[in-house]
Amino acid sequence: MGSVYHTDSIIALATPSGTGAIALIRLSGENVIGLVDGCFKSVRGKQLSEQKSHTIHLGHIMDGETFLDEVLISLFRRPNSYTGENVVEISCHGSTYIQQQIIQLFLRHGCRMAKAGEFTQRAFLNGKMDLSQAEAVADLIASENEGAHTLSIQQMRGGFSNEIKQLREELLNFASLLELELDFSEEDVEFADRKQFQELLQHIQNTLKHLIDSFAVGNVIKNGIPVAIVGEPNVGKSTLLNALLNEERAIVSEMAGTTRDTIEDEIALGGIGFRFIDTAGIRETQDVVEGIGIQRTFEKMNQASLVIFLIDAQEFQVSSSKFQAQFKITTDKYPEKQILTVLNKIDTINESKWEGLRSTLPPTTLFLSAKTGQGMDELTKELLKLVNTGALQNNETIVTNTRHYNALLKSLEEIQKVISGMANGLTADLLAIDVREALYHLGEITGEVTNDELLGNIFSNFCIGK
Amino acid sequence: MGSVYHTDSIIALATPSGTGAIALIRLSGENVIGLVDGCFKSVRGKQLSEQKSHTIHLGHIMDGETFLDEVLISLFRRPNSYTGENVVEISCHGSTYIQQQIIQLFLRHGCRMAKAGEFTQRAFLNGKMDLSQAEAVADLIASENEGAHTLSIQQMRGGFSNEIKQLREELLNFASLLELELDFSEEDVEFADRKQFQELLQHIQNTLKHLIDSFAVGNVIKNGIPVAIVGEPNVGKSTLLNALLNEERAIVSEMAGTTRDTIEDEIALGGIGFRFIDTAGIRETQDVVEGIGIQRTFEKMNQASLVIFLIDAQEFQVSSSKFQAQFKITTDKYPEKQILTVLNKIDTINESKWEGLRSTLPPTTLFLSAKTGQGMDELTKELLKLVNTGALQNNETIVTNTRHYNALLKSLEEIQKVISGMANGLTADLLAIDVREALYHLGEITGEVTNDELLGNIFSNFCIGK
Repeated sequence: MGSVYHTDSIIALATPSGTGAIALIRLSGENVIGLVDGCFKSVRGKQLSEQKSHTIHLGHIMDGETFLDEVLISLFRRPNSYTGENVVEISCHGSTYIQQQIIQLFLRHGCRMAKAGEFTQRAFLNGKMDLSQAEAVADLIASENEGAHTLSIQQMRGGFSNEIKQLREELLNFASLLELELDFSEEDVEFADRKQFQELLQHIQNTLKHLIDSFAVGNVIKNGIPVAIVGEPNVGKSTLLNALLNEERAIVSEMAGTTRDTIEDEIALGGIGFRFIDTAGIRETQDVVEGIGIQRTFEKMNQASLVIFLIDAQEFQVSSSKFQAQFKITTDKYPEKQILTVLNKIDTINESKWEGLRSTLPPTTLFLSAKTGQGMDELTKELLKLVNTGALQNNETIVTNTRHYNALLKSLEEIQKVISGMANGLTADLLAIDVREALYHLGEITGEVTNDELLGNIFSNFCIGK
Repeated sequence: MGSVYHTDSIIALATPSGTGAIALIRLSGENVIGLVDGCFKSVRGKQLSEQKSHTIHLGHIMDGETFLDEVLISLFRRPNSYTGENVVEISCHGSTYIQQQIIQLFLRHGCRMAKAGEFTQRAFLNGKMDLSQAEAVADLIASENEGAHTLSIQQMRGGFSNEIKQLREELLNFASLLELELDFSEEDVEFADRKQFQELLQHIQNTLKHLIDSFAVGNVIKNGIPVAIVGEPNVGKSTLLNALLNEERAIVSEMAGTTRDTIEDEIALGGIGFRFIDTAGIRETQDVVEGIGIQRTFEKMNQASLVIFLIDAQEFQVSSSKFQAQFKITTDKYPEKQILTVLNKIDTINESKWEGLRSTLPPTTLFLSAKTGQGMDELTKELLKLVNTGALQNNETIVTNTRHYNALLKSLEEIQKVISGMANGLTADLLAIDVREALYHLGEITGEVTNDELLGNIFSNFCIGK
């Protein structure tokens, strides 16, 4: 598209809010270099406007005669910048007071606050990246584990959008030929080779199906896999979560400033995020099955891809009937749901009794001690079985974005209409309509077809400063 | 001092922790450029080690074959960097996952995590700044209002340490001459001109006294002025705090991402921070004066520079005796404390009755309606009267650092010993001892005299990454 998009000057804090050693303030727009020059005194006495792109300059931000801060200025000249416009980044001392003062200074000098995602939106409008790549930037920033990170990097680097773009171009070619036939409809010519066209349609159909299928995996990798833990108080839920967190924590706590103070619900295992949902358990099953408490537990189970049914081994040894009743209620209610029974605290039971216990439990029951760590590896393995991580490891293309998924579904629908139309000997004019529809939906993914509302929806989900 | 200090490679996140558009990771040390080269693939295919200082390079951080992130690398070659060493700054996508992965990558490749303040400590050790300037960096980052910001900027730009350095040098000169006299003690010569020496000592004494006096102002500007609000429930304490916050909020809320959700205790008025301390008031004064509640109120009053005695005008109109008893308790307990009586909710009282009320109240009582804003300007003025902001506005040198204050006190003590020693005709050998002591304490301020323990104490208060 090139840099045909002339723009006003926008400014935003690009680093997380709060106090730190350094904060980064970013400006973009046609006039930002001159604008910053007006409030900047380089220690070398030179104007930024005389400097080359991709250079760094030490100096002072001055509000008139008032010295605001000693800063480093990074200069990027269009089109070689993130947005494709002139960009200035101010690296200042990380006090929130200074951040505010500098931003306010430039707001008074003709900048306006950038909207959420506006820098990336400009990058898209200036042809620096396609729409699906722009969306990947937000996913990348939000990624909290290896799986989500890998997928967003893949999408940011082109992912399937290059393939879609190429298929769309070939389809566009055929569409033109079909429409050319319409101009010569009296003469009954066929510019578009029907055999080649059919092959292309088949190829597109296969590609779309493959991408659509990948969404199931992509979605759980991106959003984490919900796992409900059902169990009574003191059955060891938080010990279990802590044990699962252990490995991740060991990495995290090496780094000062990133230690987590609370046990979080989302835990990364093998690079995949699992969202653990604590439930109140199923108590007083005899009388109050319909009660509010148990309804909540059921609602949470409903949201989960997997239910871990956690039992205290010692209690189970004393009386197993209560648990068996609870288990029956659960399986009756959710015959389709994956339920993993886990017998916790096996360290409190003599090993000679294990066989006896096992005979009264579902055959897949895991014997575990969250306290000693026994059985934890098996549990992690069971959880990872849930995800088809093969596709991720084989570096296959995976769709993670619901918007893309929906556009792919619509494209497939139209392509299939064209295929069956061809089979039924539909005329070129009718085929052309469905082909146009398919082109439209394919174009939505990469942003070749777009509109303000669509862009507004996409970029409003970004953070300010990106 | 020059760059004689060879160092290992340190790394830290320099921007606030958490997710943002951009995060900055900083490395410093002799070998960091080559170290980053090993994990960086420039899009232009060039090595960082071939690049000039103060340039920016787009490329990919690679963990072996794994693509970690697309980043911008800023290159600073020694001695033209913050630390005076080779410095590389990596500007990556602001996901905490990516931040961690990149830092861990370099930890595996021979970096170690930087200690708190280690970058600035290296800047000091490499002669990029003196110790008082280094300390100002931490103050600057912590500054939350105009006053604290102005003082830390002043100190960072040299402040009084240049003056101290010069006086110390002149004193050092005399010390050498005095010690030379000792070598010739048999001959009874005076190399050090006693009159000039006396003038210098007087000048140093005056300078030190002036700086020491400024600490009272500097300290409140830096740390905020504690103001206790004493008043019963529903007297309008939070309305008052909100009204005071109003002006500040108006500025803050213009900027997305910086809106405060809770009413904070620290409010900046005229660029000075005031810490408002809420107390439970003085209730049931007749019987439980010695009770726990009132003890707490007294403790809080104790910490405060000013007590605002807040009274509900309507309640006061009905029965003033209770308040007068409370007021008497307070003034009896704190005869020295500044107490400002404020009659709130005057909008609920007919103006014709005001004169009558005023006659039963202390003459300095402020009539106020926090709700309508009436009297708020006067209150702000009264609060600012507390601070001698004249010094700040006249750009005078102000000491804010307790360590400097203590060193100045010790220096003054030694200088005064020398002065009285001179007056009493003390011999050069005895004078020289006190002069050396004074030199030592003056040198502590600028870091010309230092030791590991002192440096450890100072820089451990910094944040990681600075």
